Amino acid sequence: MILRSEVRRAQERTMELFARAGIVLTAEERERIEVAGFGLGQLEAQGLELITYSNTDRYCAKELVLFPGQTCPEHLHPPVGEEPGKMETFRCRWGTVYLYVEGDAAPDIRAVIPAGSESHYTVFHEIVLQPGEQYTIPPGTKHWFQGGPEGAVVSEFSSTSRDEFDIFTDPGIVRAPTVVEDEASGEEQPH
Amino acid sequence: MILRSEVRRAQERTMELFARAGIVLTAEERERIEVAGFGLGQLEAQGLELITYSNTDRYCAKELVLFPGQTCPEHLHPPVGEEPGKMETFRCRWGTVYLYVEGDAAPDIRAVIPAGSESHYTVFHEIVLQPGEQYTIPPGTKHWFQGGPEGAVVSEFSSTSRDEFDIFTDPGIVRAPTVVEDEASGEEQPH
Repeated sequence: MILRSEVRRAQERTMELFARAGIVLTAEERERIEVAGFGLGQLEAQGLELITYSNTDRYCAKELVLFPGQTCPEHLHPPVGEEPGKMETFRCRWGTVYLYVEGDAAPDIRAVIPAGSESHYTVFHEIVLQPGEQYTIPPGTKHWFQGGPEGAVVSEFSSTSRDEFDIFTDPGIVRAPTVVEDEASGEEQPH
Repeated sequence: MILRSEVRRAQERTMELFARAGIVLTAEERERIEVAGFGLGQLEAQGLELITYSNTDRYCAKELVLFPGQTCPEHLHPPVGEEPGKMETFRCRWGTVYLYVEGDAAPDIRAVIPAGSESHYTVFHEIVLQPGEQYTIPPGTKHWFQGGPEGAVVSEFSSTSRDEFDIFTDPGIVRAPTVVEDEASGEEQPH
């Protein structure tokens, strides 16, 4: 679960990073920025913010935000029915993103693996993306990525997105945890 | 044909508009910005500038630029083999774009139809896109679009792009005209 107030704060920070990147959202889009904490309860360390512009049966486009040092946990996109797994191109628009995929491991990676989750990060072929740089992740390839010191804004162009089929290395991850209203949580509501 | 010097000037103007929109290209991408004059010899009135970020057998992403008042001529994307025509989402990033598709015609359209080409513009259902706004054009739908007073920068998310199959309403259009080096053209080279 994630508290509504935490979602709101993360949406505001996301909008600040979009503003720095010159990216404009409609009012409707601002309201539906997705804050993915993956059920781990440590959004700052392991999480991702995103807005889906379009997800059709033929293609998908999203804008992703990583806060400084925030990590999207290792996962892969498996085949769904007759279709091969999701293929995706990450294009860095602002900031820096450290991306890790299967392949020759870097001797010293630039990212910091989230403490306590070391065993759930297993691929270390490093790609560093600065604004204007991009990388295409083949279907079925394990990958994870982390925002640099200022965070990152990343455009994702891909085949159809079916997040519910994603396979995370960490078995404790829940892709779409429940958002809990602060009043219902028993905790004091922040202002 | 289009002169190399005209291509270079259009690429530089394109980079200026990308800079205003906060969009960064790599050096390699800057060199291959496509300047499409459609063989009409009137790039300012009818033309389009674009960079293709990724075009795979599953999806495509491009960034389009329209100079102020510049028009991408009316066309449609037909089925290719077993696949339905290209489907595309236009997302305005900067400036204003006037988009016209099949459907109820606007009584007074905001765009100005390129003089002398009136008969090649036949659909007038108007969509005006400001930054953050987007519209998805179904396969096989005639459409054309024009940059507003400041021009426009538009992200295109789509299914696989096969420009060579596009069907233009104007039979005089050539989708990929030859670029002619200035020295070979018999015309005086600028500078």
